[in-house]
Amino acid sequence: MTNKIPVGILGATGTVGQRFIQLLHDHPWFEITWLAASDRSAGKSYSEAAKWNLAMPLPPKIAAMKVAPSAPESATPKLVFAALDATAAQQIEPAFAAAGHAVVSNSSAFRMAEDVPLVIPEVNGDHLPIIKTQSWYKKNGGFMVTNPNCSAIGLVLALAPLHRRFGIDKIFVATMQAISGAGYPGVPSMDILGNVIPYIAKEEDKMEAESRKLLGSLKESSPAGNGPTIAPADLTLSAHCNRVAVEDGHTESVSIKLRKPAQAEDIITAWNEFSCLPQKLKLPTAPEQPVIYESAPDRPQPRLDRDRGRGMSAVVGRLRPCNIFDWKFTVLSHNTIRGAAGAAVLNGELLKAQGYLS
Amino acid sequence: MTNKIPVGILGATGTVGQRFIQLLHDHPWFEITWLAASDRSAGKSYSEAAKWNLAMPLPPKIAAMKVAPSAPESATPKLVFAALDATAAQQIEPAFAAAGHAVVSNSSAFRMAEDVPLVIPEVNGDHLPIIKTQSWYKKNGGFMVTNPNCSAIGLVLALAPLHRRFGIDKIFVATMQAISGAGYPGVPSMDILGNVIPYIAKEEDKMEAESRKLLGSLKESSPAGNGPTIAPADLTLSAHCNRVAVEDGHTESVSIKLRKPAQAEDIITAWNEFSCLPQKLKLPTAPEQPVIYESAPDRPQPRLDRDRGRGMSAVVGRLRPCNIFDWKFTVLSHNTIRGAAGAAVLNGELLKAQGYLS
Amino acid sequence: MTNKIPVGILGATGTVGQRFIQLLHDHPWFEITWLAASDRSAGKSYSEAAKWNLAMPLPPKIAAMKVAPSAPESATPKLVFAALDATAAQQIEPAFAAAGHAVVSNSSAFRMAEDVPLVIPEVNGDHLPIIKTQSWYKKNGGFMVTNPNCSAIGLVLALAPLHRRFGIDKIFVATMQAISGAGYPGVPSMDILGNVIPYIAKEEDKMEAESRKLLGSLKESSPAGNGPTIAPADLTLSAHCNRVAVEDGHTESVSIKLRKPAQAEDIITAWNEFSCLPQKLKLPTAPEQPVIYESAPDRPQPRLDRDRGRGMSAVVGRLRPCNIFDWKFTVLSHNTIRGAAGAAVLNGELLKAQGYLS
Amino acid sequence: MTNKIPVGILGATGTVGQRFIQLLHDHPWFEITWLAASDRSAGKSYSEAAKWNLAMPLPPKIAAMKVAPSAPESATPKLVFAALDATAAQQIEPAFAAAGHAVVSNSSAFRMAEDVPLVIPEVNGDHLPIIKTQSWYKKNGGFMVTNPNCSAIGLVLALAPLHRRFGIDKIFVATMQAISGAGYPGVPSMDILGNVIPYIAKEEDKMEAESRKLLGSLKESSPAGNGPTIAPADLTLSAHCNRVAVEDGHTESVSIKLRKPAQAEDIITAWNEFSCLPQKLKLPTAPEQPVIYESAPDRPQPRLDRDRGRGMSAVVGRLRPCNIFDWKFTVLSHNTIRGAAGAAVLNGELLKAQGYLS
Repeated sequence: MTNKIPVGILGATGTVGQRFIQLLHDHPWFEITWLAASDRSAGKSYSEAAKWNLAMPLPPKIAAMKVAPSAPESATPKLVFAALDATAAQQIEPAFAAAGHAVVSNSSAFRMAEDVPLVIPEVNGDHLPIIKTQSWYKKNGGFMVTNPNCSAIGLVLALAPLHRRFGIDKIFVATMQAISGAGYPGVPSMDILGNVIPYIAKEEDKMEAESRKLLGSLKESSPAGNGPTIAPADLTLSAHCNRVAVEDGHTESVSIKLRKPAQAEDIITAWNEFSCLPQKLKLPTAPEQPVIYESAPDRPQPRLDRDRGRGMSAVVGRLRPCNIFDWKFTVLSHNTIRGAAGAAVLNGELLKAQGYLS
Repeated sequence: MTNKIPVGILGATGTVGQRFIQLLHDHPWFEITWLAASDRSAGKSYSEAAKWNLAMPLPPKIAAMKVAPSAPESATPKLVFAALDATAAQQIEPAFAAAGHAVVSNSSAFRMAEDVPLVIPEVNGDHLPIIKTQSWYKKNGGFMVTNPNCSAIGLVLALAPLHRRFGIDKIFVATMQAISGAGYPGVPSMDILGNVIPYIAKEEDKMEAESRKLLGSLKESSPAGNGPTIAPADLTLSAHCNRVAVEDGHTESVSIKLRKPAQAEDIITAWNEFSCLPQKLKLPTAPEQPVIYESAPDRPQPRLDRDRGRGMSAVVGRLRPCNIFDWKFTVLSHNTIRGAAGAAVLNGELLKAQGYLS
Repeated sequence: MTNKIPVGILGATGTVGQRFIQLLHDHPWFEITWLAASDRSAGKSYSEAAKWNLAMPLPPKIAAMKVAPSAPESATPKLVFAALDATAAQQIEPAFAAAGHAVVSNSSAFRMAEDVPLVIPEVNGDHLPIIKTQSWYKKNGGFMVTNPNCSAIGLVLALAPLHRRFGIDKIFVATMQAISGAGYPGVPSMDILGNVIPYIAKEEDKMEAESRKLLGSLKESSPAGNGPTIAPADLTLSAHCNRVAVEDGHTESVSIKLRKPAQAEDIITAWNEFSCLPQKLKLPTAPEQPVIYESAPDRPQPRLDRDRGRGMSAVVGRLRPCNIFDWKFTVLSHNTIRGAAGAAVLNGELLKAQGYLS
Repeated sequence: MTNKIPVGILGATGTVGQRFIQLLHDHPWFEITWLAASDRSAGKSYSEAAKWNLAMPLPPKIAAMKVAPSAPESATPKLVFAALDATAAQQIEPAFAAAGHAVVSNSSAFRMAEDVPLVIPEVNGDHLPIIKTQSWYKKNGGFMVTNPNCSAIGLVLALAPLHRRFGIDKIFVATMQAISGAGYPGVPSMDILGNVIPYIAKEEDKMEAESRKLLGSLKESSPAGNGPTIAPADLTLSAHCNRVAVEDGHTESVSIKLRKPAQAEDIITAWNEFSCLPQKLKLPTAPEQPVIYESAPDRPQPRLDRDRGRGMSAVVGRLRPCNIFDWKFTVLSHNTIRGAAGAAVLNGELLKAQGYLS
């Protein structure tokens, strides 16, 4: 027995579920004590239920764990990380919150719900208090927190330090997204080998909406109000989303228009100095440097840069003037670590550090 | 013996040189009678000198031809297609023009020279008359014509019909370019397999400058003038150029701001109806439809669409509103056919049809 | 109306079904008049039912055809090409033969059945007479003919000319098979991008069994017998099957032990001179040269050689001594043309030429 | 200052040189104090001279080191790891041995020289004594040790435990080798993307010769002799070498004929129990388990298994009967770690542990 906090994983057999296991199986604060998946898997051992797809060998202790059904009755840990697809999440996640669980979700189902915080701890950790406006929380302490889409998260990490210092008005972004973002089996090899697919369903809308919420600000409750709310940032984003033949790591070409003028060195300084709550609190999964600027002309690249900061840093490069807006750059982040499981684990750590789990 | 017009190829052993051979070896008007390459290759048979890299087997007649040195003394055909890199072109192409050759160049060396037409026959075939302002032409009928960069050509084909009808003010474009655009050996496999390289040297500047010249207009000579000139189009383009693991076919994500409002159906009609000089003149390499709109939500894709119109059509898709500019779309074209060798062959055909070769 | 023979396609929406459409839609002898697929597709137009996945645009006439259910009642053509998976074929193909259809199957379900010819026209077109021993044939002229597995077909094309001249005793073969061999969606991109999968279910057994039947000989019926039978060839094959990140084209490393000694030039001559029934009968889909020897040291390669003979030639190279057996070589063939749809179409043409369809 | 043993790296800027830096920069016994490369690089800082190509960021201390010329005069460490191509090694390595250095080479130049040990520590660490027969050693203690080719090393690790217990008579092997095996820039992407190259110059001969030396035995000197020698193993190997689109990790399909019968469980036990000198001596780079058997039917795979044992374990799978020889299996190993730099570092550690460096 350890003194670690027990945690569960919903959707434990999928691509993101496996990343949760990778990040949590040896975690200093948390211990996986419960794994759930679809009815097809429930009752089997994890090694029977999952087609393990990571280079890290499946830890034997996890391999032997029995997969539970995705129902709150079967779950003992208060803290549950959820790697469900949106349709499943729509039903399952509220049931867990209603049953008093702290649901840290990676799904898109409730990201834009008014009382659900959509959080990147470095960017808007101060949005957590809206948890207290959730009806579940008021009843029995259950609640839900989400992290953004894998394509929004790297971009917003790069935007946040600039937004704070100079204000961002407009953003053009064209993504080149890795296949792991579509889960497993996900993208058929016949569709992507030697090819580009210039389309990812709903992704462009998600990037546009989530960025405004993430960069928005917490508004205190009015006297007559229901508690604090999030005012979305006043910026416009236009996204073009593409799938490319890369295993992990989303690369994005970005043009931005600022509200205040900034020199290249100001921008690079803003990125390199960006250090926030998770760094101050020394959260275990927080990277030392959340945004790293690489000065080589051909960086960042997914193969070389996606694992920076153990997959939790966004890497930026190619800062240069834009002849329509102000600046152009490229940003890269690991889509299943920083963009999914790692994002949720960091949210879980922030919740713990700020007392939401007790 | 045939009655065909003899033609030569400079840089015949490289990636684009091989495409020239593919497009010209069975051409109804032209016959390859002379092949030149670097000194290392000169004197060898073509099959010894070149590492043939196309799926079409090397035609035996070409295989047996002797490779000539890249000097005008050794060349008999008036019409010479040039697939040289910019450094070699800088020296060799003027020497050929000075010796009375019609040099149809694919290199970037002289694209922006004031008296050299930069031509896509469907877009600005009417720019050819500035040939007559070239000093070589005045002396002995030699001249030079160029085609644009492989990343500009698909984009400008998609822009031209819209520019004519509605006027284009601003363009954002992010490219995902095929490896064949870098020639052979070109991109090392260790750099691109499972990766993206967010950088192609000088490519963004070329796209920005060439687009304005291509969409520009011919200005008649003033009475005191030296002959007609090209006034570049009044538009601004911001480009982000990326290399991806695709063999052939450049895919581009585009946002445009128009000068006059246009509905989606107006734009699609403009593309599908775009038919120009090469189509009217029935030039052998001209595609029936230079711009094809595909309505499926996930098209165009390089693997499926690059060979449309025998590699000479640009394929457009995903037209949808842009929440910063007016419209977003994706365009694809075959970078070594429409974007290089096919572009030059079509230029050669237009020159012939309009009497510049006699 | 044409005078062409009407043909149907079972399993018309899948990877091999699409290749059937590519090869048959403009065929000089056959005309597609009937397309069938699973119940999910039946009733829809072909363009609604199929995710068309070939570079050749879907012919409009086919796009508009209505997909029929996979039942003989709905089929009018006598000749039906079948691209079903083995489980579906097990039930559907006999039903069609029983209803009087000539079923030309690409599935593995009945390849090893004693009275079903397993045929590569160049290799063992003389096995067709065992059709007459099928009970369906005796009743109403319906019958079934099959072609081999996509990994066996290229290999056996390379072995056949050597087996005839020198006799083959033992064969080692290690395959590197293209993803299209697994159909669509087939191999998940996360499994194969930058990877090798050293396993294809049942493939090794198929290669071993089918090769012996293909290279076997027709034995006349004994006076008391039921008609002619096939005596499998007396040879041993050991196969290692691997999946690699190639779109089309199976590459195979082969070592062979011959029964009679042969020099390299004898072997190359045997390959290059190999010309058989389909070539003599000038069957429309027959390649001029069924086996092509390429002498360059690094050939054959899928990207460069799979389309030789319009995808119907096997390309052989790297003939060199083996220090355990006699000779080593590499063979390549297009797995969805020569290895599947093209194989069946050629079988259909042979059946027509030899009077089995009247 | 540390008490670590200073070491140098020849060919420090290439693919294998970079892996040396990765493995040595934080090594418990060794400290990089000298880096050399070609004249083009000498005099520059390492970060200027090398295009760093690994996901691990270049350590700042190494980045700042000055690159020395490849001449013994400039080298202070006795122990020098060499990552030179064969042509360069032919001249440079003997010069270093003659100057008293311990040259631990990864090149093929001297692998088959009679007095040079070709060593995999787990397999034939007992071959080191032939160092003492080298003329350099006799003069001033300089000497040379080599490791095998990257394609031989995984194979021989899998063969060695079987050879010890059952004797191996014959081996068929077909390789699917990663692009990193060809160095940088190495394989052009146009040659390998979506393709297989069935040829690697000289590789098949190396596998055949090196395997016999590696599995050979040390013969004591005869009274009149010059010292101990290596008697090659009495076995025959036939290799087919192919290049595939994989970044790291060579996969090999193997059939073997044993001298004594063995059951599947005997073979698997032999692999899993294989533990040797490097494990007993607890050499820092030695993997806990040099050969790992994976029982899943589709393993080993490069993407999932190449990093087992920090890239130093060979992973074996798919053991099944061969119908020509006795057994078939697949083996995988990381070609630039276990197959190159890691192999040499382990050799260096063994030399240290056995007193050859003092």
